[in-house]
Amino acid sequence: MSTDPLVVFTPSGKRGHFPVGTPILTAARQLGVDLDSVCGGRGICSKCQITPSYGEFPKHGVTVKEDALSEWNKVEQRYDDKRGLTPGRRLGCQATVQGDIVIDVPPESQVHRQVVRKRAEARDITLNPTVRLCYVEVQEPDMHDPSGDLERLRDALRDQWQVEGFEIALPIISKMQPVLRKGGWTVTCLLHEAPGRPTRLLDLYPGLHENSIYGLAVDLGSTTIAAHLCDLATGEVVASSGLMNPQIRFGEDLMSRVSYAMMNAGGDQEMTRAVRDGMNELLRNIVSDAQIEAHQVVDAVFVCNPVMHHLFLGIDPFELGQAPFALATANSMNLAAAELGLNSLHPSAQVYLLPCIAGHVGADAAAVALSEAPDKSQDLVLVVDVGTNAEILLGNTDKVLACSSPTGPAFEGAQISSGQRAAPGAIERVQIDPVTKEPRFRVIGSDLWSDEDGFAEAIATTGITGICGSGIIEMVAEMRMAGIVDGPGLIGNPEQTGTERCFLDGRTYSYKVWDGSADGGPVITVTNRDIREIQMAKAALYSGARLLMDKFGVDTVDRIVLAGAFGAHISPKHAMVLGMIPDCELGKVTSAGNAAGTGARIALLNSKARTEIEDTVRAIHKIETAIEPRFQEHFVNASAIPNSAEPFPILATEVTLPEVNFNTGAEASASSGGRRRRRRG
Amino acid sequence: MSTDPLVVFTPSGKRGHFPVGTPILTAARQLGVDLDSVCGGRGICSKCQITPSYGEFPKHGVTVKEDALSEWNKVEQRYDDKRGLTPGRRLGCQATVQGDIVIDVPPESQVHRQVVRKRAEARDITLNPTVRLCYVEVQEPDMHDPSGDLERLRDALRDQWQVEGFEIALPIISKMQPVLRKGGWTVTCLLHEAPGRPTRLLDLYPGLHENSIYGLAVDLGSTTIAAHLCDLATGEVVASSGLMNPQIRFGEDLMSRVSYAMMNAGGDQEMTRAVRDGMNELLRNIVSDAQIEAHQVVDAVFVCNPVMHHLFLGIDPFELGQAPFALATANSMNLAAAELGLNSLHPSAQVYLLPCIAGHVGADAAAVALSEAPDKSQDLVLVVDVGTNAEILLGNTDKVLACSSPTGPAFEGAQISSGQRAAPGAIERVQIDPVTKEPRFRVIGSDLWSDEDGFAEAIATTGITGICGSGIIEMVAEMRMAGIVDGPGLIGNPEQTGTERCFLDGRTYSYKVWDGSADGGPVITVTNRDIREIQMAKAALYSGARLLMDKFGVDTVDRIVLAGAFGAHISPKHAMVLGMIPDCELGKVTSAGNAAGTGARIALLNSKARTEIEDTVRAIHKIETAIEPRFQEHFVNASAIPNSAEPFPILATEVTLPEVNFNTGAEASASSGGRRRRRRG
Repeated sequence: MSTDPLVVFTPSGKRGHFPVGTPILTAARQLGVDLDSVCGGRGICSKCQITPSYGEFPKHGVTVKEDALSEWNKVEQRYDDKRGLTPGRRLGCQATVQGDIVIDVPPESQVHRQVVRKRAEARDITLNPTVRLCYVEVQEPDMHDPSGDLERLRDALRDQWQVEGFEIALPIISKMQPVLRKGGWTVTCLLHEAPGRPTRLLDLYPGLHENSIYGLAVDLGSTTIAAHLCDLATGEVVASSGLMNPQIRFGEDLMSRVSYAMMNAGGDQEMTRAVRDGMNELLRNIVSDAQIEAHQVVDAVFVCNPVMHHLFLGIDPFELGQAPFALATANSMNLAAAELGLNSLHPSAQVYLLPCIAGHVGADAAAVALSEAPDKSQDLVLVVDVGTNAEILLGNTDKVLACSSPTGPAFEGAQISSGQRAAPGAIERVQIDPVTKEPRFRVIGSDLWSDEDGFAEAIATTGITGICGSGIIEMVAEMRMAGIVDGPGLIGNPEQTGTERCFLDGRTYSYKVWDGSADGGPVITVTNRDIREIQMAKAALYSGARLLMDKFGVDTVDRIVLAGAFGAHISPKHAMVLGMIPDCELGKVTSAGNAAGTGARIALLNSKARTEIEDTVRAIHKIETAIEPRFQEHFVNASAIPNSAEPFPILATEVTLPEVNFNTGAEASASSGGRRRRRRG
Repeated sequence: MSTDPLVVFTPSGKRGHFPVGTPILTAARQLGVDLDSVCGGRGICSKCQITPSYGEFPKHGVTVKEDALSEWNKVEQRYDDKRGLTPGRRLGCQATVQGDIVIDVPPESQVHRQVVRKRAEARDITLNPTVRLCYVEVQEPDMHDPSGDLERLRDALRDQWQVEGFEIALPIISKMQPVLRKGGWTVTCLLHEAPGRPTRLLDLYPGLHENSIYGLAVDLGSTTIAAHLCDLATGEVVASSGLMNPQIRFGEDLMSRVSYAMMNAGGDQEMTRAVRDGMNELLRNIVSDAQIEAHQVVDAVFVCNPVMHHLFLGIDPFELGQAPFALATANSMNLAAAELGLNSLHPSAQVYLLPCIAGHVGADAAAVALSEAPDKSQDLVLVVDVGTNAEILLGNTDKVLACSSPTGPAFEGAQISSGQRAAPGAIERVQIDPVTKEPRFRVIGSDLWSDEDGFAEAIATTGITGICGSGIIEMVAEMRMAGIVDGPGLIGNPEQTGTERCFLDGRTYSYKVWDGSADGGPVITVTNRDIREIQMAKAALYSGARLLMDKFGVDTVDRIVLAGAFGAHISPKHAMVLGMIPDCELGKVTSAGNAAGTGARIALLNSKARTEIEDTVRAIHKIETAIEPRFQEHFVNASAIPNSAEPFPILATEVTLPEVNFNTGAEASASSGGRRRRRRG
């Protein structure tokens, strides 16, 4: 048994015997304890602060005496005088082992600390960014043994940080010699170490450089671009900013942008310029909001669908507009920000784009997979990212399947007669009394229901302007539960439904939700055509999910995750009544919020996650719905509410749907769901 | 023993048994026979042409029957109809083995053929360029198994050419999809495969691309830039072009350019722009001369001294102007031409800069080492690249030493009273009669000596305008041999020398070579100050060489190579009389011409030579003359003509130098050689 003192680290519990005089940082490194250091143990960066504990520790079988660590030394004193060391703390590189000791590594001294995610089922993010700062002391030039400054810098990084070589761009070589001399042959290197890529020296600063460095996680959507600025040392989101995608002027949905590129020479380049300009504006805004300098932003991760991906990269999306929907490249991309014309961050900043899964299942879906990790789920999980194009993942630790399905814009309130974007004044929650068939609802901007006191006052400024996406889902589901709409999707007449709110509106009936005309407001109704639009959208989504279930060989899933900003607002019960998602216990349907954005943040903060998602995407089985005959059959069945073939037994325990059929023969053919296949909205 | 037919390849002599039906290309590949192919055996590129031989071959122990190869097939017929196949030739990928056969691989079908160098002692260049064309057939996209076009291209290069992955720039990805479709899923890839670098896909062309590709070997000197355009398939130089270095307006010599950068903010950037602009002009000229397209130029190799190297790269040469003369980087550089602002070649063209040896011994010296290969010499060779700064290499297979020595511009005719650049009218050859002390000479532009009939007519248009560098060397040496100048370097008076051509010229005597004043031409004289300038220049050169000999532990060398354009014009005997080079058999002093330019061409044509010179340079022992005390001593000794301490016994067998001493005491201190150390002109 060693007679050397015992060193126990908490919270890791790692322990070992070390000779008297061993610095705590050295002991930590030898045991693989996660203790940070930028200066490599020179007592100047203070990243390796630790808290020694004294007294009896029966749990560790050790008694720590007062003199278990070396005395406070000059370096620590100087640091304390200059910056102030938290009481009880020591510098791990200065304090040396003198006797048995218990050392606590506080969270802020851990390199790979965990960034906690709020949702119970979500895994924490391990902080392990691709860009880091390393302080080195470089040997001065010697005429007796001539060598380049760059070669001696290379040696220093190898000897002091075990960095085996790096790439470096000419502008950084050009600035190196004065920086080395200004720092008195000490310099802090900004290193980019992405998995599978050569290490890259992005920049260098004289002496010890302590300014924070940041990264961006960007969700580049067809409609909006959302960016989060993260402190790479803490993982914290320090600023968030969003912008409408400036490409919208070339077309609202993806297919119309692809068409624009097809029909206008150079149209793809116009759209590339537009999105890059917008991105630069967004980056300027976020940097300004966070009150940092652009050159502190050194890394960025982008997630987007394949069309946005190609246009952002400057690739004509022509091939994505027609079978076989061939991506130019599906693999992840490592680029310099400058190659993408991004000029509002560090000139050497690096960019990572997650891999695409298939021609219609993009890097955004890969990011959802990274965030929700179906490949690590013990139970079978269905992840649905609801948008104008739904990306659907189904899997568990055995395998993961993916497809996309063109839901169209109905879920965003478009193509719905009273539909609108989610904005104040939009109906977002609905209940219909099954007896009176009278609706009550809530609008965005107020917590009151429409039949509650004070509602009129609460909505006085916004008015009631329309129905948003989540509102229309609840509306149609409630109409079905109240017996106003039948299974095939037909609105009954006043006699069939027992309410005068149903009125003849052309050849079919509509349901009047709200009449604001007395106050000059709109009359809000749900037409049978609206019902048809929702039927088609939800049928597309459901049949994609059902197809994956077929391929997996199952009829039920264990849980469902609704991803996307819209997904967060969907009521699981109503979605299930509508037959938009498969039958499942309601408690097992959860929302993941902007999972694509979260996936981008994970890839930004943890370089290992990049390898992980690349491996996962490679292993994902891609299903192209366009060539699957059963997709058509599922779609037809799923056009009914909830479904003409699937039983939904779990839903039946929660909700009893009235057995009504309003078909008098006139509209039979239409109600069985003539499918209009929309391509990729 | 195999009963399969025997296949014998000439000229390699490689042989093996192969089953009936084996294509000759396959047999060649299995035996490691060097047989070219761009299309990978598809019968469309015709690079694998071979010549079968029939009849008795006692040397190979084989009889080749008429039916030893398969019959002429449709592919060969089609090729012959379209392009014409040389009679007797077959396509190696189409003709198959049917019986014992002798196959000759003509030089133009060999990939790694030898490019022959004219000089007896020079090694041939093995053709193995870093850039090549590879034709591939790419799998079409499949919705059942979606993948990116780039990933399928990657698979094709791996499967068909054993190329394991490649880097690719965004603009090439952007053009890839239309190119693949235009070529019907066949494409020719332009690949850059530099040793130790990731393979890079520089460009791609639809179908089989047969246009030649070219590379540039550029010697970027302080005074002139010389470029050679080489066909990368044959190694042939197809065009050469030169340009004055536009940086000359910032200073004639290197040190004055470094001073310009030191004294003018942004001066380094001005000079960088100047040299890059000049380079672009030169590239445009050479491409135009060769009547090719700029985008056919895909690779370029540059050699230059350290100051040119830094300025070309955009690095301030400040540190090279002062001890310890630290290079920013000494290693070889692999860059994109675009990073250097070179826009008159292929947009993806690559650039290689040879490594620098030390702060004053640049990539040009490395190129000389590559061309002259002292590290592969059995006998001890001294290589001297004579210029305003002399680079000196000494070595053999055991080791190689290198240094540089600041000779100044005297050897280029500068700082010599009647000196001039080598141009028509300049005296380049001199003989002085030892009895009469009368000179005869030849001028550039005429083969006649000045005392031959017709000389006056021959030089009527140019006149006699001055003395060029090689002329001044011969002049001073002849003056020493004729007893006009003594060992310490003093010109004698008319009494001492016995000629009225010596005349008092201020405090010392000058020697009149030519009086053209009657015809309005110049009076050409050699002043004692001119002698001093030559003494200092040659002393610097000699003492560098001698220092290396000290370090090597030798007093003699086996052979001497004079490199550089100037070196080609130096008379070995006169150089030795002058004591400019060490004592050596005159037959062992050879000229290598522009060895730096040749080194650049070798590195361009043979990628393995790049690794080789990098290894060689790493192993070279660098000697900094500035800190070697013996350098001073050697310099003082070498100020005498030929030398005040070294005996030069071999020279003594060829030439007897008069024992004269004109020192009357007045000029003693000056003639012993007060050293003016010039820094790097």
